[in-house]
Amino acid sequence: MSQTHAQRPLTTLQKNTKKMVTVRLKNEVEYRGMMDNVDNYMNLIMTNAEEVQGSKVVGKYGRVIVRGNNVLFIKLENEL
Amino acid sequence: MSQTHAQRPLTTLQKNTKKMVTVRLKNEVEYRGMMDNVDNYMNLIMTNAEEVQGSKVVGKYGRVIVRGNNVLFIKLENEL
Amino acid sequence: MSQTHAQRPLTTLQKNTKKMVTVRLKNEVEYRGMMDNVDNYMNLIMTNAEEVQGSKVVGKYGRVIVRGNNVLFIKLENEL
Amino acid sequence: MSQTHAQRPLTTLQKNTKKMVTVRLKNEVEYRGMMDNVDNYMNLIMTNAEEVQGSKVVGKYGRVIVRGNNVLFIKLENEL
Amino acid sequence: MSQTHAQRPLTTLQKNTKKMVTVRLKNEVEYRGMMDNVDNYMNLIMTNAEEVQGSKVVGKYGRVIVRGNNVLFIKLENEL
Amino acid sequence: MSQTHAQRPLTTLQKNTKKMVTVRLKNEVEYRGMMDNVDNYMNLIMTNAEEVQGSKVVGKYGRVIVRGNNVLFIKLENEL
Amino acid sequence: MSQTHAQRPLTTLQKNTKKMVTVRLKNEVEYRGMMDNVDNYMNLIMTNAEEVQGSKVVGKYGRVIVRGNNVLFIKLENEL
Repeated sequence: MSQTHAQRPLTTLQKNTKKMVTVRLKNEVEYRGMMDNVDNYMNLIMTNAEEVQGSKVVGKYGRVIVRGNNVLFIKLENEL
Repeated sequence: MSQTHAQRPLTTLQKNTKKMVTVRLKNEVEYRGMMDNVDNYMNLIMTNAEEVQGSKVVGKYGRVIVRGNNVLFIKLENEL
Repeated sequence: MSQTHAQRPLTTLQKNTKKMVTVRLKNEVEYRGMMDNVDNYMNLIMTNAEEVQGSKVVGKYGRVIVRGNNVLFIKLENEL
Repeated sequence: MSQTHAQRPLTTLQKNTKKMVTVRLKNEVEYRGMMDNVDNYMNLIMTNAEEVQGSKVVGKYGRVIVRGNNVLFIKLENEL
Repeated sequence: MSQTHAQRPLTTLQKNTKKMVTVRLKNEVEYRGMMDNVDNYMNLIMTNAEEVQGSKVVGKYGRVIVRGNNVLFIKLENEL
Repeated sequence: MSQTHAQRPLTTLQKNTKKMVTVRLKNEVEYRGMMDNVDNYMNLIMTNAEEVQGSKVVGKYGRVIVRGNNVLFIKLENEL
Repeated sequence: MSQTHAQRPLTTLQKNTKKMVTVRLKNEVEYRGMMDNVDNYMNLIMTNAEEVQGSKVVGKYGRVIVRGNNVLFIKLENEL
């Protein structure tokens, strides 16, 4: 419960660019990959992303820009 | 019915960071964990969160940022 | 049809904090309890709330913050 | 087609407070009662309202605040 | 293709108040009647309106205020 | 790939008023006709429009104002 | 992980006009073609686009303007 945990959500997102994330969208599809960048609307660029439906990888993406309003949550993968 | 109860909803949320909450999203899935931080749009960071569908834990999250527009409600767990 | 009835809806809500309300959300679930506070977006804090689906109580909440955009209506219980 | 008919919709609503209306919400449920007040977002207070589903009265409300974004239309009852 | 056709959509709406229109809402129900007034959000007042579902008239309205965000389109009836 | 192609989407729309377009709405219905005018919200006026569901023409419209938030896309017909 | 990767999502989109993209909309339909231009709302112009449902091409578009609020994601095709 250090001070570094007290950042606002959007600040935390910014500090985690270039790290692995899983993004779940409102349509329940997930994208796993490197979060290249993100803005305050949660628009984000992912690189080397895999699209996962249930437990199956159904697509691969070199670079993809996700529109923020579709985001349900962003899981930081390096912290479980 | 003390004065401390008269805070606006967003102020109350801010005062309850670092406490256990259950967040229900519009898709009826719930996340239980520590509310690390929250902003006025109800974007929130949760740590050590469990995803619960019905009564089953279906996922575990080290740190996850939930987009506020998906939030149905946030239950403060230490107050029932 | 007194003057006190001529308040704008959000003013009326503010004057009814600390009173019993039933809040129906867009997903047709209702929450009955004390409206601890409310803001102009209709974000609200409820205390000692019961979640009601149909006529069954399906949950109890010590303190819960409901996000305003999900609200269908708020019924003032002490006035029927 | 008098001049008094040329008011903007929100002005017309304001001039019809304290009159009987039927409000239909997006979920197709209707509320009939006295429109105690209304604001420009179409948040409205109704008193002595009946909830009608199809042709059945399924609830009665002493005073209820409806969130404007759920409103489909407001019918002025004293003008058919 | 005269100059008078080059008006912006909202200006065209304003110039057609007091004329017959058919308004289709997002729930696929249509209202036919006189467009008494309209604002830039497409909130509109209709008088002597008929509610039409499929090809059946299912309701009559002396005066009704439709919330603009529900509008799919407004057909100008005197111009086919 | 001339310079004239480098216009922003809304500028391109403005330059194509008085031309034939097909507009698909979110409910999957299409309207084919002359785009009389359009604003930056994508509210648009169409004249001599046909409503097409699947491959069937199901309606004809002398002049219709479509609310922009319902638009999925606008296809410029003179450019295939 | 060069500096050029650190652009914000909307800047990255701007830098990729005149390149091949696949745009998936919220209704799960995809459009593959050249992204002629795009604005900060993610309104975009595509040229020589194919509409793909599942794995079938179901339409061809000379030039089409897609309304940004419908966009789920934009995949940059030249980078897998």
